[in-house]
Amino acid sequence: MRIALLGGTGDIGEGLALRWAYHSPHEVIIGSRDPDRARKKAADYEATLAAHDVSVSLNGFQNPMAADRADVAVLSVPPYYVSDTIESVSDRLTGTILVSPAVEMTRDDAGFHYDPPPAGSVTALAAAAAPDETPVVGAFHNLPAGRLADLDASLGLDVLLVSDDTDAKATIHQLTEAIDGLRALDAGSIANAPEVESITPLLVTIAHENQGLADLGVQFT
Amino acid sequence: MRIALLGGTGDIGEGLALRWAYHSPHEVIIGSRDPDRARKKAADYEATLAAHDVSVSLNGFQNPMAADRADVAVLSVPPYYVSDTIESVSDRLTGTILVSPAVEMTRDDAGFHYDPPPAGSVTALAAAAAPDETPVVGAFHNLPAGRLADLDASLGLDVLLVSDDTDAKATIHQLTEAIDGLRALDAGSIANAPEVESITPLLVTIAHENQGLADLGVQFT
Repeated sequence: MRIALLGGTGDIGEGLALRWAYHSPHEVIIGSRDPDRARKKAADYEATLAAHDVSVSLNGFQNPMAADRADVAVLSVPPYYVSDTIESVSDRLTGTILVSPAVEMTRDDAGFHYDPPPAGSVTALAAAAAPDETPVVGAFHNLPAGRLADLDASLGLDVLLVSDDTDAKATIHQLTEAIDGLRALDAGSIANAPEVESITPLLVTIAHENQGLADLGVQFT
Repeated sequence: MRIALLGGTGDIGEGLALRWAYHSPHEVIIGSRDPDRARKKAADYEATLAAHDVSVSLNGFQNPMAADRADVAVLSVPPYYVSDTIESVSDRLTGTILVSPAVEMTRDDAGFHYDPPPAGSVTALAAAAAPDETPVVGAFHNLPAGRLADLDASLGLDVLLVSDDTDAKATIHQLTEAIDGLRALDAGSIANAPEVESITPLLVTIAHENQGLADLGVQFT
């Protein structure tokens, strides 16, 4: 499959790009608003992979070109760029599944808090902004980006999937488990995204409050 | 320590009562609105423990008597009884830590959803209803009651603690880890309770959506 990481120069995009290129046979494309930055990051990822004895070629493009003919496009951008990013690629999404991993949170003295947009969740916001025929899957919200990008780190983590499109969810299930150490779990429809997304600020709070814990993910057991 | 399970005849109360009696030296007292029911359940728990070669005596009382002189009182009642239960024991809480494990949720076609009270969380509701000098700790929200009550089942689960009282949180940390297979993690102040409580409906949804998964808890790793 051809996977485009839109905003693939950021933390979670880097982690997913490296892991798919490292563990799976899928083609990985790096997208960015700035095509030079996309190309530079793609070259950096190639170098990281080469240092781990994996020789693959990653292309970098401006987001619309990256999304073009992709089977899956991951919106690995901050939550406030999700709508604009979708709009910028919306005429290139024929046959593409959009994946939304972003979470909106605020910080106060007590810790980090879930702060969903009026749509109810960032995943629901992405679904509202996507063309009608483009399926949206919420996934990868609760993965620690740093650990994902460290190819020497083991994962052993669960990924919760929410979507109103069963086939699209099955495809992302398969792509998730193509990465060693990730288990995909069905968390139902996009209406359940708030409960999934709200784990992310909690992971940050727990790492902050407990010595020796960092870069946390979650397992349901 | 003397631990009172108010509403200790219900699912989570049963699980905690059995586990503390089984794994720890602490005194466990069963409370209920109906003292006969409290006594009957206490006898049932004694029989379950005896079948597991643990000979302990558990007393059952009406909630106010159970709370009296308890070091810790767990509000193991449904969320809509939390305020009334606190009110019914409020003149017996000198020196007692209140623990709130309840979560309010709704169900629709998509799954189970977090549905916090106007206070922001059930833990915050308990804190608002408690006498000023009584510390409140949110804990045990995400434990599978059935597995807890099955003394042959292994746990290997995390318990998130939220409180605005550091000493009270340390006491509940210690009581949590007195149960084999539970790790206590600090999740900060009661302002963080919504993120902790909202995992509970998600656990039910995940068990419902994924074959072979039931009675789930969570691990942060």
